[in-house]
Amino acid sequence: MKKILLVLFVTIPFYSSAQNKDVQEILGVMENQTSSWNKGDLDHFMIGYWNNDSLMFIGSNGITYGYKQALQHYKDTYGDNSKMGKLNFELVRLKKISGDYYFMTGKWFLTRSAGDIGGVFTLLFRKIQGHWLIVVDHSS
Amino acid sequence: MKKILLVLFVTIPFYSSAQNKDVQEILGVMENQTSSWNKGDLDHFMIGYWNNDSLMFIGSNGITYGYKQALQHYKDTYGDNSKMGKLNFELVRLKKISGDYYFMTGKWFLTRSAGDIGGVFTLLFRKIQGHWLIVVDHSS
Repeated sequence: MKKILLVLFVTIPFYSSAQNKDVQEILGVMENQTSSWNKGDLDHFMIGYWNNDSLMFIGSNGITYGYKQALQHYKDTYGDNSKMGKLNFELVRLKKISGDYYFMTGKWFLTRSAGDIGGVFTLLFRKIQGHWLIVVDHSS
Repeated sequence: MKKILLVLFVTIPFYSSAQNKDVQEILGVMENQTSSWNKGDLDHFMIGYWNNDSLMFIGSNGITYGYKQALQHYKDTYGDNSKMGKLNFELVRLKKISGDYYFMTGKWFLTRSAGDIGGVFTLLFRKIQGHWLIVVDHSS
């Protein structure tokens, strides 16, 4: 979280006002994810994802589609406290692709009693009905 | 390759002429990759990547940057025939993001004497100086 906030402060001067708002909203999605995860609230963690059957989620199980399926994957994989642990993100890059798309690269870390794990993620964000939502998540 | 060609024929009727050309060029990059790989020619395989220090490559080693570094990674990891094997792609989705960006999702398969392996890839293509090039490769 500290690293995400640091990047927010560092990069804001280089963005236009509209971009600034987009970046703030996108970083807000990530902040919600860490705080929800760290409260053990997977339903709230999912709010940043596109609630649609076409949500694409790529992880250790290959490609899965759909919001409900992604939520179920998280519940199946991290359903108890020892596996869930504490989530932290490190933002590597947030790249504007167009007025409706941003591409984020970052690292994820889970500190937990079942053993720490982590990796890299790339997220495709799309602005849908005024909200920035993750439409593709590739985590490895 | 058969699957890539199949998708090309199936999807062309739904694209405009300009998109059709973009899609053809992007699929051509993938065709060059499979044919070059299967000839054992990693230098030619790399032609579809952005020849720049900012090329982002995400794989089992985490995030690496740069064209030369990506080529070296391939040479270190797949430098002999038993590890290289035969490459095949299955295109899952090719999504236009903007006039300058496409986002591809697919599966990769290596059939080889050292043991078959495979996984999923997501590629961010960008049109740079008239050429469609991979600027981010996330393979898992």
